[in-house]
Parts: sequence; structure tokens; C-alpha cells
Amino acid sequence: MRDFYDDQLDALAADLAAMTTAVRLSLARASTALLDGDLGAAETVISGDAVIDAARESCENDAISLLATQQPVATDLRRVVAGLRIAGDLERIGDLAAHIAKLARMRMPEPAVPASARPIIAEMARVAEGMLESVAIVLGTHDLDAAAALLSADDEMDGLYRAMFRDLLDGDWDGGVEAAVDVALLSRYYERTGDHAVSIARRVVYQVTGVVPQA
Amino acid sequence: MRDFYDDQLDALAADLAAMTTAVRLSLARASTALLDGDLGAAETVISGDAVIDAARESCENDAISLLATQQPVATDLRRVVAGLRIAGDLERIGDLAAHIAKLARMRMPEPAVPASARPIIAEMARVAEGMLESVAIVLGTHDLDAAAALLSADDEMDGLYRAMFRDLLDGDWDGGVEAAVDVALLSRYYERTGDHAVSIARRVVYQVTGVVPQA
Repeated sequence: MRDFYDDQLDALAADLAAMTTAVRLSLARASTALLDGDLGAAETVISGDAVIDAARESCENDAISLLATQQPVATDLRRVVAGLRIAGDLERIGDLAAHIAKLARMRMPEPAVPASARPIIAEMARVAEGMLESVAIVLGTHDLDAAAALLSADDEMDGLYRAMFRDLLDGDWDGGVEAAVDVALLSRYYERTGDHAVSIARRVVYQVTGVVPQA
Repeated sequence: MRDFYDDQLDALAADLAAMTTAVRLSLARASTALLDGDLGAAETVISGDAVIDAARESCENDAISLLATQQPVATDLRRVVAGLRIAGDLERIGDLAAHIAKLARMRMPEPAVPASARPIIAEMARVAEGMLESVAIVLGTHDLDAAAALLSADDEMDGLYRAMFRDLLDGDWDGGVEAAVDVALLSRYYERTGDHAVSIARRVVYQVTGVVPQA
């Protein structure tokens, strides 16, 4: 019986890992769609979002089945509950990638990001991808250094977000209203991606140490 | 034993109801802060967000304790798992209310919403408050008509969101870049509030009927 239980816990972990891979790829493609005007990448992200949503349902069903049949307690129980929450955060990152891809597609063949905003948005994309890479490591290894790196990457993300809004609002913005609105939303999407990555790292740190890391 | 179990399930439901009340009030106050330039309302929302975050932790601990000690199965298990997710959605609505209040406060004593955008933003605020009222009813009574009303209110919300962006992007916007960015973010906050309300209603409908209502 115990072997089957371990198999089920491993299956949940494997599903979360597969979901993380899918979400990472989706976010990277969304950034390619945005920054390179790649329509195919945008379409792939948008149509692939349903697969990520289904993966979340699958993780949730795994977790519920585990709770019903194995009735885990203590550490294992918290691990299963954390898995439910992590699947939710991953799904939201997938949604945000789809939002980025849709915004990019809507403006094609024009770039959604004007030249003046490109350095910061490209940097946000890079930081977000690094954070998703850290999410994969943290989930796979429960490595606390990777979790700490993720939290400090989020400080960088927040700094970029604030810098982008300073540029938008300092009175010198020359990109026009449409581009300002696009850039504000894109900044928000990347910043939210970072928040969800942090939420995942916090869950894992809590599982490992019993202490929730502060913001 | 069964009595204590029922008490625990009732306590979780009562905590979710209390959280819903707090979140409704917070969102209503955020809209007052925004539309009436009420600084006190903004401060109350912003400082109250930590209480809502703590309520979510409390709901989560209730749920985990129930899972650990009572090991519910079938319907009860799905109810507890749904409770975890609903607490998460409510917390996010609280966060969005705090975002609205912060944006309002940042612009005071000027209004964050220019006169031309006020009718649509005020309507989004009204629809959001109605949706939160429906959330309270749906959670309290599991009434499927209230859940259906909530889903159709979200269609209204999405229509308002699209209308606001049409106004922002049709080339006639005369409110300037800063106001455009503010209005874009505010629209997004209200629209996300609606999405979280829908997510809660869907969870409840699924508990009652076993079928997830489609978007």
C-alpha cells in the first residue's frame, strides 16, 4: 500500500514539473511573439493555454484522489495542499503568457512595444524567464538557495515595473496613448508572473522549513 | 465524532462567509475612495488588506486541520478543497481592492478617473459590487440562480472592459497618457475581480451539480 502511495505523490510532483515546463515554454514564446513580432509563437501560446488549464485540472484531481484514498497527514498533507496551490499559480502564469501573446498579436505587424520601452520590457521578459527556471529548480530539488534567488529576482522585477511606470508617467512619454496602455498592461503581466513564481517558492520553502519567508 | 466534524465544516463555511463580507466592504470602500476621492476610505482599504490575508491563512489552516483530523471523502472532501480555492479567490479580490485604493490615493486630491471615463468605471464598480453580493448569496445558499446571475454579470463586466479600452484606443482620448494608464489598470482590476467572483461561483456549482459551468 505504501508503494502505491509514494507513486501517487511522485505522480503529483511529476505533473507539477511537466506543467512548469509547459508554462516556461509558453512564457518564453509569448516574449518572442512580443519582442520579435512572431505570429506563429503568439498563436502557439494562445492555443496552448487550454492544455495548461487541463494540466491544472489533472493536478487537482491527482491531489483530491490522494486525499481521498491515502488520507495523508502532517508533512505529506501539506505537500498535497501546496501542490493544489502551486498548480493554481502555474495556471495563472500560463494565462498571463496568453495575455502577452494576445496583445502582441493584436498589434502585429506593428510592434506592441515602442522602441523607448523595449529595453525595460525585454529585461522584464528575461527576469521572468529566469524566475520560471528557478521555479523548476525549486520544485524539483527543494533547493533553498534557488528559492532565495527567486525572491531577489522578484525585487529586480518590481524595480523594473516601477521604472517602466516612471517612464510612462514622467511627462516625457512620446509613444502615444495606445502604446502607453499596452506597455502598462504588459508590465503588469510580467510583474504578476513574478508574484506567482514567488508564491510557488514560498510554498516550497514552507514545506521544507516550516517557516513562510517574508516579502 | 460526527458532531465535531460538522462543527469544523461549519466553521470553514463561516470563515469563508466572514471573509466574503470583509472583501465586499473593502471593494465598496475602494470604489468610494476612487470615485469620491475619499482618502479615509482608501487608507482603510489599504491597511485592512492584511486582515483579509490573515483570514485566508485561517481558512487554509481550518481546511488542512479538517483534512488531517477528519479525513473527509467524496462530497465533503470536494467541499474542503473548494474552500481552499475560494479563500484564495477572495484574497485576490481583496488585493485588487487595495490596488484600486492605492491608485486612488496616489492621485488625490485629483481624481484618478477623468470625467470622460467616469461613467464606465463607475458602472464597473457597480457591477463588481453586485457580483460580490451574489458571491455571498451563492456561498451562503448554494443557489444556482444566483450563480447564473453572477455569470451573466461577468459578461456585462467584460463588455464594459472592452468599451473602456475602445474609448482609450480609438484615437479620440483626450485625457492624456497618465489618465489612460490609470484607467487601463483600474479597468483591469475590476475585470479581474469579476473573474475571481466567477471562479468562486463555478466551484460552488460544481459542488452542487457535479458539472463545471462553462464560460
